[in-house]
Amino acid sequence: MGSKKGIIVGVDLGGTSMKAIAVDRKNTILATAKAKTPSASKPKAVIAEIAALVKKAANGAGYKLKQVSAVSVGAPGQVDGTSGMVCEAANLGWKNVSLGTDLEACVGAPVAVENDVNAGTVGEHLLGAGESVSEMVGVFVGTGIGGGIISRGKLFPGSRGWAGEVGHTVVDPGGPVCSCGRRGHVEAFASRTAIERAVWEAIKAGKKSLIPEILKERQKDRITSSIIQTALSRNDPVMRAVMERAEFYLGVLTANLMNILDPECVVIGGGIAERLGETFVAPIRKTAYEFSPRSHAARKLRIVAGALGDNAGALGAVMLARQRLHL
Amino acid sequence: MGSKKGIIVGVDLGGTSMKAIAVDRKNTILATAKAKTPSASKPKAVIAEIAALVKKAANGAGYKLKQVSAVSVGAPGQVDGTSGMVCEAANLGWKNVSLGTDLEACVGAPVAVENDVNAGTVGEHLLGAGESVSEMVGVFVGTGIGGGIISRGKLFPGSRGWAGEVGHTVVDPGGPVCSCGRRGHVEAFASRTAIERAVWEAIKAGKKSLIPEILKERQKDRITSSIIQTALSRNDPVMRAVMERAEFYLGVLTANLMNILDPECVVIGGGIAERLGETFVAPIRKTAYEFSPRSHAARKLRIVAGALGDNAGALGAVMLARQRLHL
Repeated sequence: MGSKKGIIVGVDLGGTSMKAIAVDRKNTILATAKAKTPSASKPKAVIAEIAALVKKAANGAGYKLKQVSAVSVGAPGQVDGTSGMVCEAANLGWKNVSLGTDLEACVGAPVAVENDVNAGTVGEHLLGAGESVSEMVGVFVGTGIGGGIISRGKLFPGSRGWAGEVGHTVVDPGGPVCSCGRRGHVEAFASRTAIERAVWEAIKAGKKSLIPEILKERQKDRITSSIIQTALSRNDPVMRAVMERAEFYLGVLTANLMNILDPECVVIGGGIAERLGETFVAPIRKTAYEFSPRSHAARKLRIVAGALGDNAGALGAVMLARQRLHL
Repeated sequence: MGSKKGIIVGVDLGGTSMKAIAVDRKNTILATAKAKTPSASKPKAVIAEIAALVKKAANGAGYKLKQVSAVSVGAPGQVDGTSGMVCEAANLGWKNVSLGTDLEACVGAPVAVENDVNAGTVGEHLLGAGESVSEMVGVFVGTGIGGGIISRGKLFPGSRGWAGEVGHTVVDPGGPVCSCGRRGHVEAFASRTAIERAVWEAIKAGKKSLIPEILKERQKDRITSSIIQTALSRNDPVMRAVMERAEFYLGVLTANLMNILDPECVVIGGGIAERLGETFVAPIRKTAYEFSPRSHAARKLRIVAGALGDNAGALGAVMLARQRLHL
């Protein structure tokens, strides 16, 4: 009584960076903290860094670490939520890491572990663009493309928790080879990685582009969402063509998700959607309607940008922890 | 007591024919009856024919019509299972037909109405190829292509009961125009209608084929599943090429369903699968594995032909009636 115990810290663990968000009982954000994910480190070292970030977020909110009620991590790759294990996460180089129990030992509070994209979907569903619908699909466009399905208000897991792996949907069987080694997947057309690759291929093939100049001005070497935005604002023809192609295939994907799953709403999240918003989503929506049976298209099913930006994963992890730990 | 009341009659109502199956409490088939669906008739006339077919199936099983406990109809198109309304069925020319209440008045027993492809999926799930799994997808290849999704052992409806409308999945955005007016849907490559159209186009374009000869021998004008089988058995090059294309795109569809829904099993039903069995399913399976991430393909997820043939719809309707009417 009178204890400030009651905050939850959600963590979005990525291959290059991690973000922690401390929220109160009403899911109000009290503080956030960010850090680079240590690369080429052992899992134990990464887990120690996560614990330090949790402490930083709690302190930022005016709480001590021991006042944290629970921690919830959205982790990339295959996650077993029941045991808190990360079974396989290629971009962390992890196999069978007991993230839940190891982090619990560091923070002294119960820890829930969920797949990051499922967490992002739940975040957008409960606190973001999908509020008040019970059937939703989340599509997250980042380094790769992931997704999650909400049915009857809950995550739809499939037989092994892999449902909603929308990045490996075939949108053109003659298309380029995906990171997974197979052909024609939407991730090979429309992830940030695919966009970057297509830009450099066009430039190498002799197409004129402002992108090398923009990168130089900004002293960057990667084509980030911010670089994409600048190139589009300067009407760069290479970036325009590459983005049109990416948006077209994301529209085909969205049409397929509408047809197969009959949701009330499709939410497009991730860094590019956060940065470009409706500019990115409008052509996706147009193509999705064009490839859907007229009776579907006529419904004007909601296809919208995510509302939580890069907080979606950490906030969704919090909401999943509330369900799992009954908080 | 001692009454033989307890049989249920399931009806599969199609645009050209209908089939009724009388089953006992253990779902043992006691009798079946078939009839042509009256064409260009008013709904009332079609409903009277359904009632006559129900009576015929009951009589065939040794029961009077008044001894039938319930009737369940799998109807094409958009069905509202709660009210028993067929909202729209293009191949019957129906709009807002109160099939449930009208048929109840004719047969004097409670009537359930379900979508025919959902019924077929439930039939294969509970009594056919999907027995003992809880996550399954059914794909039915006929005049069109339909499907249904089973999740946690129950039909997955989506927001309006349209989930599993897999025929309108885009498998190649540059592909032919579908019956719905949109481009690249699997139905436009692989339905019996699409197969028939592709065969005639090839023959008109001058490709040599035995198909006109086979049709003449059989005194048929439509390319039925039986004609497809004969042409393949005689190694007809046109039929071989058309079927290879259809199977390829059904494989792409299956890969997408595996990725999006993470089922334990995909069941391929409908007339062609019934007729050709593993000959039809093997190339679909091969392509589905080729387009799935290796970790999925390595699982050897079950992709199998339906086990119930053209009884799937009527038997599934019976099983749905048991759930709906608590029988």
